[in-house]
Amino acid sequence: MMKLNAIENELLKNIADLHNIPSGAVNIRKNGEGIIRHSSANIEVRPKTDKPGIDVIIAPGTKNEAVHIPVLITLSGLVDVVYNTIIVGEGADVTVIAGCGIHNPGSKKSQHDGIHEIIIKKGAKMRYIEKHYGEGSGERILNPQTIVTMEENSIAEMELVQIKGVSSTIRDTKAQLAEGASLIITERLLTHQDQQAVSNMTIELNGKNSNTKVVSRSVARDNSSQIFHPIVIARADSKGHVECDSIIMDHGKISSTPAITAEHPDAQLTHEAAIGKIAEEQLLKLMTLGLSEEEAEDIILRGFLE
Amino acid sequence: MMKLNAIENELLKNIADLHNIPSGAVNIRKNGEGIIRHSSANIEVRPKTDKPGIDVIIAPGTKNEAVHIPVLITLSGLVDVVYNTIIVGEGADVTVIAGCGIHNPGSKKSQHDGIHEIIIKKGAKMRYIEKHYGEGSGERILNPQTIVTMEENSIAEMELVQIKGVSSTIRDTKAQLAEGASLIITERLLTHQDQQAVSNMTIELNGKNSNTKVVSRSVARDNSSQIFHPIVIARADSKGHVECDSIIMDHGKISSTPAITAEHPDAQLTHEAAIGKIAEEQLLKLMTLGLSEEEAEDIILRGFLE
Repeated sequence: MMKLNAIENELLKNIADLHNIPSGAVNIRKNGEGIIRHSSANIEVRPKTDKPGIDVIIAPGTKNEAVHIPVLITLSGLVDVVYNTIIVGEGADVTVIAGCGIHNPGSKKSQHDGIHEIIIKKGAKMRYIEKHYGEGSGERILNPQTIVTMEENSIAEMELVQIKGVSSTIRDTKAQLAEGASLIITERLLTHQDQQAVSNMTIELNGKNSNTKVVSRSVARDNSSQIFHPIVIARADSKGHVECDSIIMDHGKISSTPAITAEHPDAQLTHEAAIGKIAEEQLLKLMTLGLSEEEAEDIILRGFLE
Repeated sequence: MMKLNAIENELLKNIADLHNIPSGAVNIRKNGEGIIRHSSANIEVRPKTDKPGIDVIIAPGTKNEAVHIPVLITLSGLVDVVYNTIIVGEGADVTVIAGCGIHNPGSKKSQHDGIHEIIIKKGAKMRYIEKHYGEGSGERILNPQTIVTMEENSIAEMELVQIKGVSSTIRDTKAQLAEGASLIITERLLTHQDQQAVSNMTIELNGKNSNTKVVSRSVARDNSSQIFHPIVIARADSKGHVECDSIIMDHGKISSTPAITAEHPDAQLTHEAAIGKIAEEQLLKLMTLGLSEEEAEDIILRGFLE
């Protein structure tokens, strides 16, 4: 089996909590090419024939399995665009671990645009975790597009995390929910230095009793800036809640522009947003316990982003 | 003194709670012309010389005075555009009652576009009430633009109300706040039938310790639709809160798209929005007391919009 070097292993640990190459279904893409690929009995992983990327076909009824599809970039000046399709079969219950880590050793920009189309069939449940991480001297750009189609009574829990080190990101997440479908999205973003992040989300509640909850937590430090634009449209007797909590520090800027639209008389939509600095009392309390201001800030931010 | 007929008196009562022509400073505009105009010792009301409209100059230190500047339209097919400038002198404490009532007896559209520029000088306080009302067979359009400049430590409380009967409205409210300025906006909108309402607000917190609170309450009935787009931008150590509560009934549609932007690390901004139907429990409770469903709805809506 192909082995990864120390930098690659470190990236993999950061974005997918992997210390080894997992035994189940997996696809590891490195510098624009699939380098490790396995299917399992229930989860088929196969390369697309018309464009870069893979199809992940999860058989109906598959339970308690996971598929890992991380992307690693370790070259400077590489722009990698990939199209992945994930189909979660009827009644399945699985975990998909995506994510991208860039180690950019040079001075040119390295970029990964991952376009994920996810179809969750009737009554299926998917947990989806996507972590982004960057390091190195060159610019690191990550533009994920995630398009989710949820059939009747399907469930999705998505955790979208930008750990750190991403120079610029435009995140696009779209979901359409049929009757009884339920979608929970948790997004957590940290930006430093001059980094910029934009997160657009459009969730359409098309079916009766569909529901969604979006929780976004973000921290903008130094001169970084972030823009959030979550949209929830309710076209049926459905429920949606959007919550954006942001901490700004140093000269960070955050703009939160949610939109909730009710097009059905029985729709219920709510939204909450707050932008502010770290609570002084919390800081002082930790500092009286002997921590430096920086240590205290770190602990509070870690708690906030967990 | 000029007398008003029954229809005009009724409009005046609806939009300005006036049963008589008030004794103080006043300007009543009817069908595109100022028909009644008085100044008081402290409040000068004078026609503009370059365009339609008036200047209202409130002397510094004026206390507990009111100025009424309502607009009446009773013709079908009239489009009236008016530019009013209101200057509230340093340390004054006054009430400005604007508003527009349209009785459209014909089949052509009648429209009033009121562009109000308001300057509130240092330490002054203004209460501003603007009510809109329409009736009659022809289309009734009201497009108010209100641009408020608030100097150091000034205070404004603005009540913007669309009572009913307005076929279409685009409301534009802009405010800039200097150090220590405080702005409270309460907006209440009711739409019926095929009526459409758009409310845009942009509030810029430019000065230290400036603060704003925007409370919007709205009800969309029948096939009416409403769009809210309040924006608060904080450029200083300042506070802002936006709250949008909406009730949809029948086939009403409401879209709420607030934006809060923090460009200063000590800014604190929050937003809450909720769109839903009348709470069933409330309805049932009133109905068990012997009210019909319609009566119960009326009482709940009146309470919500008060």
